[in-house]
Amino acid sequence: MFLGAFILNVKKGLEGIVALETEISFIDGENGILEYRGINIEQLADQSFDVVVYLLLYSKMPTIEDTIRFSKLLKSKRDIDNKTKSVLNLCNFNIEAMDALRTAVSHMSHCDIDLNENTPEANQRKAVRLVAKFPTIVAGFQRIREKESLIEPDPELSHGANFIYMLRGEKPTELEARIMDTDFVLSAEHELNASTFSTRVTASTISDIHSAIISGLGTLKGPIHGGARLAVMNLLDEIGDVEKTEEFILNLIKNKQKIMGFGHRVYKTMDPRAKIFKKLAKEIAEEKGDMKWYQMGEMMEKIVTREIVEKKGKPIYPNVDFYAGVIYKYLEFPPKLATAIFAIGRISGWLAHCLEQYADNRLIRPRAKYVGKHYSGDK
Amino acid sequence: MFLGAFILNVKKGLEGIVALETEISFIDGENGILEYRGINIEQLADQSFDVVVYLLLYSKMPTIEDTIRFSKLLKSKRDIDNKTKSVLNLCNFNIEAMDALRTAVSHMSHCDIDLNENTPEANQRKAVRLVAKFPTIVAGFQRIREKESLIEPDPELSHGANFIYMLRGEKPTELEARIMDTDFVLSAEHELNASTFSTRVTASTISDIHSAIISGLGTLKGPIHGGARLAVMNLLDEIGDVEKTEEFILNLIKNKQKIMGFGHRVYKTMDPRAKIFKKLAKEIAEEKGDMKWYQMGEMMEKIVTREIVEKKGKPIYPNVDFYAGVIYKYLEFPPKLATAIFAIGRISGWLAHCLEQYADNRLIRPRAKYVGKHYSGDK
Repeated sequence: MFLGAFILNVKKGLEGIVALETEISFIDGENGILEYRGINIEQLADQSFDVVVYLLLYSKMPTIEDTIRFSKLLKSKRDIDNKTKSVLNLCNFNIEAMDALRTAVSHMSHCDIDLNENTPEANQRKAVRLVAKFPTIVAGFQRIREKESLIEPDPELSHGANFIYMLRGEKPTELEARIMDTDFVLSAEHELNASTFSTRVTASTISDIHSAIISGLGTLKGPIHGGARLAVMNLLDEIGDVEKTEEFILNLIKNKQKIMGFGHRVYKTMDPRAKIFKKLAKEIAEEKGDMKWYQMGEMMEKIVTREIVEKKGKPIYPNVDFYAGVIYKYLEFPPKLATAIFAIGRISGWLAHCLEQYADNRLIRPRAKYVGKHYSGDK
Repeated sequence: MFLGAFILNVKKGLEGIVALETEISFIDGENGILEYRGINIEQLADQSFDVVVYLLLYSKMPTIEDTIRFSKLLKSKRDIDNKTKSVLNLCNFNIEAMDALRTAVSHMSHCDIDLNENTPEANQRKAVRLVAKFPTIVAGFQRIREKESLIEPDPELSHGANFIYMLRGEKPTELEARIMDTDFVLSAEHELNASTFSTRVTASTISDIHSAIISGLGTLKGPIHGGARLAVMNLLDEIGDVEKTEEFILNLIKNKQKIMGFGHRVYKTMDPRAKIFKKLAKEIAEEKGDMKWYQMGEMMEKIVTREIVEKKGKPIYPNVDFYAGVIYKYLEFPPKLATAIFAIGRISGWLAHCLEQYADNRLIRPRAKYVGKHYSGDK
């Protein structure tokens, strides 16, 4: 019994394997460069989330007229229906918001007016609805589990501001609103990360776009992917104090434990998104007049840099989740919401990848190398 | 700006790329050989589904005592709770059962007593519950949408027989029961097919096992994967008659349209599962005293072999879905149930792959080659 000659080397975790060509994003991990559709992330960080969603879905920067029209469209689709609210009500209130979001999206697909339509036009329409409704589901679930009444979306507010408003019942400050939108922008897209890859694997069987997004949600949830933000928040809470930070982190390093929010498969230098998040974390700390979480973050970065980057020569820098976690502390988000908030941004990248996959599809179906025994014949 | 030297060739669809090592199944596509855990599929086709689930989950053939104990355990976990029934009631009744199953599993995870436990022991317990409950969800949804009362699982019946019983409200014949169990056995596992691969991508972020299974469900649903059974059933209905088969298929070939249920990425000869399904299709046709669907299937196979295999030299043979679709016609399953029935079998393979992934994890994160423009600097 033999394996075909093409089955030679196992690429565990598919590290370094190029699975496909894309026009959506570009990463240079050596030099810390990230572009969406050819535009540098630093330039995009000043844009509204709506602009970035437009760029990702329609492959070009919107004009001012495009932006006005597209924002209006997104705002008009923010509502969720009563059946979706009923599904949220049936959720166990102890779960991560991510589990509720995954369930609600799965249910929403049933009632989508383009159910069973898998044309480019129908998928564009579904994409707009999904982007628009994600914040409403996440905030809605949090209100339901806190036994608070639901807040209707406010079309006067931006995507980020409206999310905080639906969560709190009060409008955010200008800085909070801007940071929320930038968080969504920075979280929107990152090439073939595991969750995006899983959406493309699902889409590659010509399954529907909701199924693909649900794969992305389930994959993002893992603690070594989007779940890291929750872990960073829990770590900050556990340490609790700037003075205790050094000893705590040194202990983690001594015991060879993973430090959540540090290190990345692709970046061998500081993640460009982490730099922007760090700047925003400082701004929000200053507005709140409480530097504690920011200083703890800085201290953690300093110790990891000294002990791991400098002493051991390993490129373990803060990743996108680290200062995002610090910011979420200032925005007073419950940790169990953290990954779902990441998903509110990332949905836009997932959708762009689905559309790209459908447009030139090839079933994603690798092989495995069998390393077990063969019993046949003598069983 | 440059890409690292490791980014060289794009393997579209990851064809021929070995993503990982496995001890779960072995395929020799050239010679039409399939083994689960080293045991030939022909030998396993005579076993009950419970035996094969045990083999896949625990890496060894059960003794008679193991089988009795394990079957009893599975039977004791078949019930679904009232909240899951409420979720099924909230589904749009026009959907494929697959969409209801995906939603119900997503919801069930919230109420799982091992929620947030990701240990090998907890995952084994979750695996047993998932295998046991899948038929109850699928049959339950079908009964609900037909406005019929739910049928409680019958612990006297095998996995396959009980599924048909919960669906119809009447016990199946001995042959029907045996065929149903064998269908689950043949559908259980197939190396890194797209849905199994997606469950492993999700599991590779250390996300929970329910999330991983939900990725598998969404991926299996696609028409160029598990959705092919539904397509085969629809094709049989559309042709409708043995006499019309030849012309219909010749027309499809002339217009270069895909013939559902034929061809496979890995097999370059007849799929060993298809051979067994074909035999079973003939048996059930004879029991029903109606050869029509079987004869249509044989005719389609004959024409495709003559026109594509022989004249064009392309290895396009019936795959696992083709005669399964024929059998589902005889079992009078509604086409919208077909993919979900496939999932009742495949869940066992997905679970084995999740457990294997967790046991020696490496994040599955390939790269993409950027082929778009770069605008940065001159935007």
